[in-house]
Formats: sequence, C-alpha cells, structure tokens
Amino acid sequence: MSRPVPRTEPAGTPLGDAFHVYDTTLRDGAQREGISYSVADKLAVARHLDALGVGYIEGGWPGALPKDTEFFARAAAGELELRHAALVAFGSTRRAGLTADRDPQVRALLDSLAPVVTLVAKSDRRHIERALRTDVAENCAMVADTVSFLRREGRRVFLDAEHFFDGYRFDPDTALRVLEAAVTAGADVAVLCDTNGGMLPLGVAEVVREVAGRTGFRLGIHCQDDTGCAVANSVAAVQAGATHVQCTANGYGERAGNADLFAVVGNLVTKLDMPVLPEGAFAELTRTSHALAEIANIAPDTHQAYVGTSAFAHKAGLHASAIKVDPELYNHMDPEVVGNGQRVLVTEMAGRASVELKGAELGLDLAGHPDAVSEVVQTVKEREAQGWSFEAADASLELLMRSAIGRADGAASAGAGSEAVAPFTLESYRVIIEHRADGAVVSEATVKVLVDGVRMIATQEGNGPVNALDAALRAALTPSRPWLENVELSDFKVRLLSPGGGADNPDGHGTDAVTRVLVESTDHGGSWTTVGVHGNVVEASWLALVDALAYAAMRERSSGLAAAVPSGRPGG
Amino acid sequence: MSRPVPRTEPAGTPLGDAFHVYDTTLRDGAQREGISYSVADKLAVARHLDALGVGYIEGGWPGALPKDTEFFARAAAGELELRHAALVAFGSTRRAGLTADRDPQVRALLDSLAPVVTLVAKSDRRHIERALRTDVAENCAMVADTVSFLRREGRRVFLDAEHFFDGYRFDPDTALRVLEAAVTAGADVAVLCDTNGGMLPLGVAEVVREVAGRTGFRLGIHCQDDTGCAVANSVAAVQAGATHVQCTANGYGERAGNADLFAVVGNLVTKLDMPVLPEGAFAELTRTSHALAEIANIAPDTHQAYVGTSAFAHKAGLHASAIKVDPELYNHMDPEVVGNGQRVLVTEMAGRASVELKGAELGLDLAGHPDAVSEVVQTVKEREAQGWSFEAADASLELLMRSAIGRADGAASAGAGSEAVAPFTLESYRVIIEHRADGAVVSEATVKVLVDGVRMIATQEGNGPVNALDAALRAALTPSRPWLENVELSDFKVRLLSPGGGADNPDGHGTDAVTRVLVESTDHGGSWTTVGVHGNVVEASWLALVDALAYAAMRERSSGLAAAVPSGRPGG
Repeated sequence: MSRPVPRTEPAGTPLGDAFHVYDTTLRDGAQREGISYSVADKLAVARHLDALGVGYIEGGWPGALPKDTEFFARAAAGELELRHAALVAFGSTRRAGLTADRDPQVRALLDSLAPVVTLVAKSDRRHIERALRTDVAENCAMVADTVSFLRREGRRVFLDAEHFFDGYRFDPDTALRVLEAAVTAGADVAVLCDTNGGMLPLGVAEVVREVAGRTGFRLGIHCQDDTGCAVANSVAAVQAGATHVQCTANGYGERAGNADLFAVVGNLVTKLDMPVLPEGAFAELTRTSHALAEIANIAPDTHQAYVGTSAFAHKAGLHASAIKVDPELYNHMDPEVVGNGQRVLVTEMAGRASVELKGAELGLDLAGHPDAVSEVVQTVKEREAQGWSFEAADASLELLMRSAIGRADGAASAGAGSEAVAPFTLESYRVIIEHRADGAVVSEATVKVLVDGVRMIATQEGNGPVNALDAALRAALTPSRPWLENVELSDFKVRLLSPGGGADNPDGHGTDAVTRVLVESTDHGGSWTTVGVHGNVVEASWLALVDALAYAAMRERSSGLAAAVPSGRPGG
Repeated sequence: MSRPVPRTEPAGTPLGDAFHVYDTTLRDGAQREGISYSVADKLAVARHLDALGVGYIEGGWPGALPKDTEFFARAAAGELELRHAALVAFGSTRRAGLTADRDPQVRALLDSLAPVVTLVAKSDRRHIERALRTDVAENCAMVADTVSFLRREGRRVFLDAEHFFDGYRFDPDTALRVLEAAVTAGADVAVLCDTNGGMLPLGVAEVVREVAGRTGFRLGIHCQDDTGCAVANSVAAVQAGATHVQCTANGYGERAGNADLFAVVGNLVTKLDMPVLPEGAFAELTRTSHALAEIANIAPDTHQAYVGTSAFAHKAGLHASAIKVDPELYNHMDPEVVGNGQRVLVTEMAGRASVELKGAELGLDLAGHPDAVSEVVQTVKEREAQGWSFEAADASLELLMRSAIGRADGAASAGAGSEAVAPFTLESYRVIIEHRADGAVVSEATVKVLVDGVRMIATQEGNGPVNALDAALRAALTPSRPWLENVELSDFKVRLLSPGGGADNPDGHGTDAVTRVLVESTDHGGSWTTVGVHGNVVEASWLALVDALAYAAMRERSSGLAAAVPSGRPGG
C-alpha cells in the first residue's frame, strides 16, 4: 500500500473545511463501560468512519496508551488509507514547568505523524487550581506554548476546552483567556466541551452565541449525554454558530455517553439542510451504525434515532391504517434516505390494515383475501392474549398468513397452508436431563414422528433439552430431507411472561404464566425467526422448532431445489 | 379495600396543579416494539409511578383494547389506590356524523370511571383531510362536542393535539382553531404533540412561545424521540412556557420512543430547580426506572441519563484519579440525589470498597475480614466473567460472603459458611419431559440426595422441568425440614447470555453461551433472589434452587424457629 498523503481538511463534502464532522469514537467513545477495542478493531472502525465521509477521525492518545501508539504507527505505515477524513491525535498540553519540545507526551503527539492534533486544556478555574494545582497564567502559557510548538512542526491544531460551560458560568474571563491563548498561538478551532454533561440546549445555544460574539473565534462543540440532551445540545450549538461538532458512533462514551454521530448528522442533514457528508454517503448511516456496534461488541440499540431497527416501526392500529393511506403522514422522513426501512408490527393492537401491509412486506397479496385477513387478525389477537408475540417472529406470522390464504382459496392452493408445509406429524417426544452421580450433566431426546407416512424414531444427545430435541428431530427428518443439513438453529431466546409465575408455572403462583421461546434459524442463504408459547419451556421450544422447520421446507420448496429430492422417499 | 376518591389534580408535590408530570407508559409506552403488558403488569406499573409521585397516569384506551378496559375496571373496583396521581383514560373524539353521547368509543371513556380523560384530536390539516377524510369545521365540532359532553359528565379533560408542530408549520390557523375548539369547550390543557418526532429544541421553544402568546392557553408538550431530542424538546418546551409534560418510563414508545420520564424529571428538578415530585420521591428515580424495566421485561439501558448503572461510572484513569481528589469535579451532580451511585470501574480498590459497602448493607461486617473481602472480590470477578450476575441476587451474594467469612474465621464460626447451611448433598437428579401420543405434555423429576446422612429418593411431577425438580427436592427434604412447607418459589427468570448461542448452546454457535436463571423465593415473611449459571437451562435452575433453599435454611436458623425441629431427625 502507498503511504497516504496526510490530510488536514475534510475531503469530498460539499461544505469542505467550512464544517467539521469530527468523530472521537476511538478515543472518547472507548471510555464506554464494556468497550475494549483491539488495534485491528480501531483500524476497522476508522475505515468505516472514513467510508461514511466524516471529516476527522480522532484515533486515540499516542504516548499515553500503548494500543493508541500502535494504532498511529500502523496507520502511518500504510494500514489506513483515508479517502475523506484527516487523522487526529489527541493529547494534553505540556506539563507545568517543562517546555513543550521536551515534554515526552507532546513529543509522542508529533511522533504519531498524525497531521492534526487536538489538545485538551482546562478552562474551568476550579479545575486549574484544584485538579491541575497551578494558576490561570501558567495554564494559558501551557496552552500557548504547546499550540505554537505543534504549529511550528506543521500540524493543524484544535483546542478542546474541557469543562468550558461549567467554567464559563463560574468565571467567564478565565474560560475566554484559555480560548484566546490557543487561537492566538495558532489553533484553528476552539471546541467548547460540556465535559460533565450537565447542559440543556437553550443554555448551550446562549453560551455559544455569546462566546462567538465576544471572541469571533471559530467554535466547535463536544457534548456528553448526562442530561439525555447530547444530540440536542450539539445541534443547538451548530444553530448558534458552531462549525465543528464532535461525536461518537452510537453515542458511545463514558457515563451516559457522548453525542451520537448518527443522530447529529441525521439532524444536520434532514432538519437543517446541511450537506455535511459526501454525496451518497448518507444512505450508509444505518449500515455503518450496525457495523460499528458489531466491532464494539455491543448489541445495537433497536430504538436509536434514524438507524435503529425500530426507528421506523409502527405498531398502533390507528397509525398503521393511516400509513396505508399515506406513509408520509406518520414518519418524520423517508427511512430509505438513511438506509433504514419502514416496518409494520403485527400485534394484538393491529387492525386489518397492519396485517395487509405486513403481508405486502412479506410478498403475500392479502388485499384480495378479506376472509384470510379476518382470520389472521383474529388468530393474532387470540394468541397474543395467551402470550404469543409475532412482531419478532416474521416466519411464524408468514406461515399463519399462508395457511389462512390457503384455506380461503380452498383446494386450489391448499399447498400454501402451514399444515401442508409441515414436513412431518408428531406422535410423541421425550426429553431426559440427568445430573449424574459423577457430576456430569447430560440431555437426551427421543422423537417419534410420521414422515411421508413412515414412522421414524430417533434419539440424540445435546448440551441441553432443546438442543437434544432439535438434534433428534433432525435425525428423524434428514434421511428424507437431506437439505436440512444446511439449516441451523442460530439463536434461541426465552422469555417468561407474567411476573409472579414462571417458566414452569409453580403451584399457587401465576397459574396463567407461560414461557415464550423465539428461535432464529439460518440456511446460510437467509435467516428467519419463529415463536412458540407454552406453560412448559420444552414444549414452547418444540412449537418454535416445528415452525422453523416448516418455514425451512417452504423456503426449500420455493427455491426449486426440493425437486431434486423426491418428497415421498422413505428415510433409512 | 376502600374505593379510592377520584382525584383530578396531582397531590403531594410543592407545585400542585401548577405543573403536571403526566405519564403515558401504559398507553403510548406500550407501543414500543417488544412490550406486551398484562393487566397485572399495568396495575404494578401504575403503583410504581404513583409511589414516585407523578401527577397523572394514563392507563390506556378503554373500549379500544380489552386489556385496557379490564385495567380501568379493576382500578375502579379498588385494586389501584393512588396516593399522588390521578388516573387518566385516553381516547378519541367522537366519530364524524355521530353525537358524542351515542359514540360507543366515547361512552367507553365514561364507563372507565377515570376522573380525567385525554382526548386525541387531529390538528394538521393534511391529516384531517387525508387520513380522517373530513374538513376542519367538522373536525373542530368533533373536538368541541366531545369535550363538552365529558365536561358535563364531570370529567377533567386534556387535549392531545396530534401532529401539532407539523400542522402548525403547514397551516397555523387550522392548528390553532383545533386548540381553541377544545379549550373553549372546557379542556384544561392543550397538549402540543410532536407525533412524528421530527422537531429540534430551538424550534419547539419558538413554537411553544408563539402559541402561548397567541392563545393564552395552558399548554402541554408530548415528544417522540425520532431526532434523539425528545427529552431536550420537552425541557425546552417547559422553558418556553409549557406547564404539563407527557413522558414514558425509560422513554418506551413507538419507533425511537418517547421522552424519558426519568431524564425529563431529572432535568426539571436538578437543572431548572422545579420541585415537580413530592418530597423524598426524587431519590426513588433509579429504583423506579429499574423496576419498570423489569415489568416491561426489557434489560435496563445501562447508559441511560441519571438512572443507568453506568450513568456515574468513570473509566478514564485521568478522571478516576481526579475523582479521588474531588468527586464534584467530574460529575454533573451527586448521584445519590436520584438514588444512583458513583462507580469507578476496573480498579481493585473500588472492588474491595463496594464489597464492604454491600456487606454492610446486608448486615455483615466485612471490614474486619480483609481476607474474606479478597476472596469475595476474586470469586465475584471470576463468576461474573462466566456470566453470573450478583446485582439482582443478593441472597446468593450473601451466602458467598458468609462462606468467605466462615473460612476466614476458621472453625469458630464455620457454621456461617454456605456449605454448612446447605441442607443436603446431591447424589443425582433426572428430569423427564414427555409430549405423549395423546397430546399431554408432562414433566417428572427424581432426585437422590443425602439429608443429615440419610439417603432420600423422591419423584414428583410438575408443570415444567424446573417446577418438577423443585417439587422433588422439597419432597426429599420436607420430612426433616417441615418449615420448607412455607417456602415457595415465587418467580423464575431466564436470560440467555452471548447472542449467537443459546440456552442449549447449539453446536457450532456461541460455544461459550450460557443460561442465567434467577429464582425468587418467599417464606411469606420476606423474599430473596438467588442465581445459577450453566450451559444447560435445567442445571442453571438447579443451582439457583439449591442456593434458594440454603438461604431459606439460614433464615430459619437465625429466626430461632429451627430449634423446634431437631436438625438430625431422619426423614420418613
């Protein structure tokens, strides 16, 4: 790989250097409880952010953290070629009583070869005196010296004014003197940080406007989410004149987190009409968010603004019927614009409209089958009252819809019904779990089923009761359905309904308590989720497993590959 | 229970009726994907909200949803006594072309006996014409008629002006005419709803100020979180003059959710100095949030503002050392104020301190047992790495602590150790679950245990594997421990850890996946929770059951009642 040309300005966005989308996922985001990036992770995160088109990627604190030093070394060695972003090293001003060029921490910033350096400096007099144990004059000298030194060495410099908002309220003159020391020495942007995250948007807008008016400096904003307002505070600061906004992917960060990059960018682009990303990149918002959650090993927030899987999901019957008329009426924007999609959730609250929309989403024409729609609405209502939930189990819902359509159509298309695709009939099963005298815990299942008229009995062991049952059922079916080898149970979720009762419905408590099991299956060409509900956790799992295999059979049939295996072939 | 006096004003807050904290968790919050409240859940949620001191609890839409109708019926029958809140029924204005008193939906609102009714009405001309298919005049008549009718029947009425902000931007006159129709007819509050959630705080503040100026009406605010700004928008509206704020617990709601009650109240109390909750209730914020997450069966958001377990957790070495100097410097407020706590992560020091604090909370003096503290810190660290969680299982943690103290003290107090209180030794168990040919699903368990040196074998049936195992173990122990008759398993929770694997750890996926089981037990004098973790759900349940009975034995011993039953008495 060729050595990338060090860039100090964002490339490819219509606004160019006039507006900075600055990402600090790799430094401030990594402070989130539970995140621990490897160097390879950091390189991968930077590539995703660059592809999305952010202007600046803060890679870490070289010299302070060995992983960060290595990240910059590998980036400089050619492992990270950036198309849009400039790479930024984060660090502190020189220590009190040491010149900048002799401070090892400052030298490490140079050694990182990052073309841009963001220096953090204290701007709250209480922090200067109580935490740093120095005075305002020396603090300003530390800022000015370090900025000058880095500028002389050819770096672009931004200043993170730590605790700016608290400091400005406590002693505005000190706060402004720190900004002035930095900008006079050559810093391009003075970033106002709400480090403790206690601000609200109207207050942020007021301070940003006031500071811009008093100084004329280019201002940036960095918000933490301790009031649940980090996104709003960042956007309010931009509306008040800030032209540089620091965020983290999915709002990762210390305590309650930082301003979420995706929501901030989403708001700037769709609400304030600011083209802050390169052409075409905006549609990658959702995908990028999920990819970065994967790398952080944190389950994506399903309800995250713009990018969450539920962000455009509608449940209420009232809303669903209006959406059928006009999707614009119940979404604040077109979800496709950020690479997300609208979903209609079918629940007991759903009316006919939701069921029809959901059918269309699944490729089924229910509009021409009013009786089938009635049946589905009725069945969903009844089952959900018993604890079933179809909103996360599209495959079970599709089987139910196909079954209703099949019945409505009569014999002509009876083959589409759920019963018709179920690849067997159950006679009985038995599962045994033993904790033996030697301490071993073993599970064994036996199923007796009728497959294409042939009675099959199979016994298998497993790591637990459901795994054993799944294995035994497959053993009984695979001889006649060899394609089942490709179908795997990939996830399994258990939920107990009605507190006060339990999975097993203990006597005298919650006698209507049930267990809901969701099973996710995959055939490596796709995945699907099915649901089962019963007072007994094993039976609930069984019901979900049966739906999973019925759905697999339907997929197999519609793929046409099933033709290669005569369906009447008896098993061995 | 006595019939509660219907209340139409908030009780117990210093602001009284001058400011409304209005909760709609049970109606709008229930629209969140994945939430499905039973009627018992709804009653429990309402009790928690009332204890926190919210002014209004919107219970649902009687007449539209059978569960909501039942909720109001049971509340009216005396199952819900509210100390602070007034109960609210949500519903729609009369249909076009029908008088209010003859509209069954409006009558259901009256029949709910809720003293307050919130009516939703369209205020965006496009919705009136395209979704409702009527005109502005008829829409206003529907509002006025329904409000008048409900006022005549003695109800207090609030108006939810749906899509107000979008409607006001599109056609301000129509939007204002709808508010006027409601207020003139007797509605007390005109609630401006950002139904599609596309607003930003500066825009919300501007509209609220303008509408307040043009109408003089009492205004409320209802925000959705589609821009990630619902909390900020709600607070900005209050700063602009709204005196009624609609929220949901933990921000539950459709799509990206609603404004989070806890963050909104946290901001109003700590940032705007508004005493919107009764004296003392504010410290219950964190506990209430977690309890409501439990009832919703949604894992609490660890990074939620104010109430998340990470909301005051510090990871940065820089911050952690500064916090040691002066905790005020790095927190926006004292976490104790909202019943939360500061945490410093990944330091052995913090580990020891929290174990000692927890011990003190449980009545154990660990300060004098440094070796026991080390052992507990080490064991908790190791087990949590395997998926155990002691946060919600105090009884298991106490057994672990007592065991460590026992060992540290030597023979003198060995009786306090967990091993010493376990009332038996396991030889083996076996659980059989059968789905028989006649369709019956049965579970049967056999345990072989050594009780006071006597080998006991017992077999019992149950509704499921864990229930059967619990019954068999009790059958083996009860002859020598008759007090076990009073001990019941009252709740049972299963959580699967590591996505991609499952309870049964299916082959080839998440080979380190485990199941965590929490068992809650009660002896009618109190309740306690224990935890078990294993790759097999039945074994994990067994481990939690054994801890539950060990803890019961310890309670029995310390209550002194155990003396009445000779511990060496062999079973029959």
